[in-house]
Amino acid sequence: MSDEQRAELDTITHNILTSYARHEISQRIGEVFLPSRQRIVEILGEVRQILFPGYFGHKELTQENIKFHVGNLLSRLEQSLGEQIYHCLCYAEGGEDTEPCREKAARIARGFLVQIPHIRALLALDVQAAYDGDPAAKSIDEIVYSYPGYHAVTVYRVAHELLSQSVPLMPRIMSEHAHSVTGADIHPGARIGKNFFIDHATGVVVGETTRIGDNVKIYQGVTLGALSFPKDERGRVIKGLQRHPTIEDDVTIYANATILGGETVIGRGATIGGNTFVTESVEPGATVVPNAPSLEVRSREKDG
Amino acid sequence: MSDEQRAELDTITHNILTSYARHEISQRIGEVFLPSRQRIVEILGEVRQILFPGYFGHKELTQENIKFHVGNLLSRLEQSLGEQIYHCLCYAEGGEDTEPCREKAARIARGFLVQIPHIRALLALDVQAAYDGDPAAKSIDEIVYSYPGYHAVTVYRVAHELLSQSVPLMPRIMSEHAHSVTGADIHPGARIGKNFFIDHATGVVVGETTRIGDNVKIYQGVTLGALSFPKDERGRVIKGLQRHPTIEDDVTIYANATILGGETVIGRGATIGGNTFVTESVEPGATVVPNAPSLEVRSREKDG
Amino acid sequence: MSDEQRAELDTITHNILTSYARHEISQRIGEVFLPSRQRIVEILGEVRQILFPGYFGHKELTQENIKFHVGNLLSRLEQSLGEQIYHCLCYAEGGEDTEPCREKAARIARGFLVQIPHIRALLALDVQAAYDGDPAAKSIDEIVYSYPGYHAVTVYRVAHELLSQSVPLMPRIMSEHAHSVTGADIHPGARIGKNFFIDHATGVVVGETTRIGDNVKIYQGVTLGALSFPKDERGRVIKGLQRHPTIEDDVTIYANATILGGETVIGRGATIGGNTFVTESVEPGATVVPNAPSLEVRSREKDG
Repeated sequence: MSDEQRAELDTITHNILTSYARHEISQRIGEVFLPSRQRIVEILGEVRQILFPGYFGHKELTQENIKFHVGNLLSRLEQSLGEQIYHCLCYAEGGEDTEPCREKAARIARGFLVQIPHIRALLALDVQAAYDGDPAAKSIDEIVYSYPGYHAVTVYRVAHELLSQSVPLMPRIMSEHAHSVTGADIHPGARIGKNFFIDHATGVVVGETTRIGDNVKIYQGVTLGALSFPKDERGRVIKGLQRHPTIEDDVTIYANATILGGETVIGRGATIGGNTFVTESVEPGATVVPNAPSLEVRSREKDG
Repeated sequence: MSDEQRAELDTITHNILTSYARHEISQRIGEVFLPSRQRIVEILGEVRQILFPGYFGHKELTQENIKFHVGNLLSRLEQSLGEQIYHCLCYAEGGEDTEPCREKAARIARGFLVQIPHIRALLALDVQAAYDGDPAAKSIDEIVYSYPGYHAVTVYRVAHELLSQSVPLMPRIMSEHAHSVTGADIHPGARIGKNFFIDHATGVVVGETTRIGDNVKIYQGVTLGALSFPKDERGRVIKGLQRHPTIEDDVTIYANATILGGETVIGRGATIGGNTFVTESVEPGATVVPNAPSLEVRSREKDG
Repeated sequence: MSDEQRAELDTITHNILTSYARHEISQRIGEVFLPSRQRIVEILGEVRQILFPGYFGHKELTQENIKFHVGNLLSRLEQSLGEQIYHCLCYAEGGEDTEPCREKAARIARGFLVQIPHIRALLALDVQAAYDGDPAAKSIDEIVYSYPGYHAVTVYRVAHELLSQSVPLMPRIMSEHAHSVTGADIHPGARIGKNFFIDHATGVVVGETTRIGDNVKIYQGVTLGALSFPKDERGRVIKGLQRHPTIEDDVTIYANATILGGETVIGRGATIGGNTFVTESVEPGATVVPNAPSLEVRSREKDG
């Protein structure tokens, strides 16, 4: 590199540093460091090993070695989960009070381990719902091992538990990881009942304040979203209100339906057809079907 | 860790073990172990290196070294593919008859290698169809190297071949991996003709019993899915029937169209408009267009 | 392996080599080698570290070490970016004129570094737009760290800069990588104004010749695509025309709307409802709403 080029590189460095000072919004220099996304993704992997023994991680499990195996996994998970929860709490409080944070983090990590059998019980129902609801499913194993919808629901149930224990940032990092891998974006704040099945998964969005009952089945591309947001005097949306729909028990929602609004209730046993746009409540047992598209018959043109 | 905490952790471990016994559906303790998802994904990578020499893997290929290079890759692939097919067969038969399984696996792996030129011939047509059909494509290389739709079709053609040789589990693991990477979920059981092109790919679903002719082009978000499922006396769907549409030659299906049902036939040369919901057959040469959305002109409100 | 099996493997190898000769379209034997996709993805990671210090990569940054840290990153990035740009140029020119290529590549890499503060300024506005527009966003950090839409826009702004400096292949490889990770497919050729926000991101497609103004917000599943393509006498689409819509300032487009055509202009301040299919221009301030779906109330059937 010539002297001139080196000087130019110094100028570039200087300008970038100036940009950090000018646009503080997207830099974290001299601040408490963020929890590690990569470690949080690894934690999800460890949780999956405990939830589904013999599927993920060590495979040659027997009734003899399983106790030792799980004990080991739990110790490691408690450690790594506690560490990252600590960073999340610490981050949320701006780096103050590190000792109470550390104790609180350990308590929450332990509390999460206690909930694992409960999460497993829910996931056992979910996998059965997937098997019963999908004629293409050849076995339970295929679902646990490779269905993106089931993976997304698994991560949701884990992230929802952590959110309910008031862990900041981590639940959302988990759910966005699952979103990237599965195409389904389920906010950890949503409340979802038993026997939930998402088929194909790509493009599904379940918003933060959505409520879903038992035995609900949704297909790819379904959005349960917000309709509009009350704004404050500065024109910014007010956060924290119920903005997403309520889906009662036994509802099926077909591909690419968009259901919006915090006051929208899809009644028990209703069926929502594909490609519909629903912003009003639907009676229990009703079926919403899209208008038939127009059919235009043309003499066939030679293509090329 | 205090004694009390240690005792608590023992209780947690115990409860998780109890949960394994109670919900056997999602554990595989003491069972034949599953084939390795990671190894199967690696096999896909090796297959791609053979299908597209010079694109993936070793790049400095010449007419001199190519024979040696391919011979090497084939030996390794036959080994690793045979090994994982063996685990798949073994798994499907519950661990019985390991020697016949091993021989059968070797036979299938060899049979797959034999089909590679045939798969390449199909993929050469597919890449040309992509180039001809997409004005944004600057070169064939760009498509092979980076188009998700082409990647999804590649994995489909490989997985379909393995499924047709009755390999359990592996084809679905391959297609769900491609689904995760590309956003397109093509079931390996679908039958797809020549010159197939999926543009953009995200959200595409092609169901297990779909039949697609030659020269078909589909866009992002298109679902070729099931309409409803006959159920048995326990209310569970009956598996194995034709549930997905038939798409004849020369059909184009635009973004986010949903076409459902095993008796739905989209006739030769038809065009299906975007965001339509089609559950009945369409005549050859016809064009299905969505109903025009309503236009409501409001005085512009100041936003914020 | 028996002699017979070995002979068979030789035949298979021979047939694959023959297939390379027959279908040259998908092999690159004896050609200039392609730039490395993996290295280009790593470059994106390095760029992110410079754009968002303290979020990605090294985290314990202070006002003291930041200058040294950035200087270091820039040197490395200039090196690796220059190297891959060189391969892209070399590839595009078929391997000729390597020395001028190398100099040109170095010049472009340097030119990209110069633009970093400008890119940061745009991204600072984009993150604020995301925060203001999404009630579920708890902090700016959450958006930078985990929002797929923001990630896609970040990669777009980087890839667009490289494309505007006429780098072949690399911008598309970057955008398809972001597409795979985020579900949003933004062509690097699109022109996008300030304060751009994509919520949820999965299934979004923004075509090559799209123009988007300031303060535009789009939701998951939105397509800004081409309607049809003029074809040449051989029936192949003509490349290079304006094929995608123009979206003026202050427009909001809801989930799964499909807007097509190079002459389609969505006027300033318009709102496009979800699941609509729009192929004609929309007046400024207008609202396009989907037709209400049909409601069919059935006596509730017992499901199973």
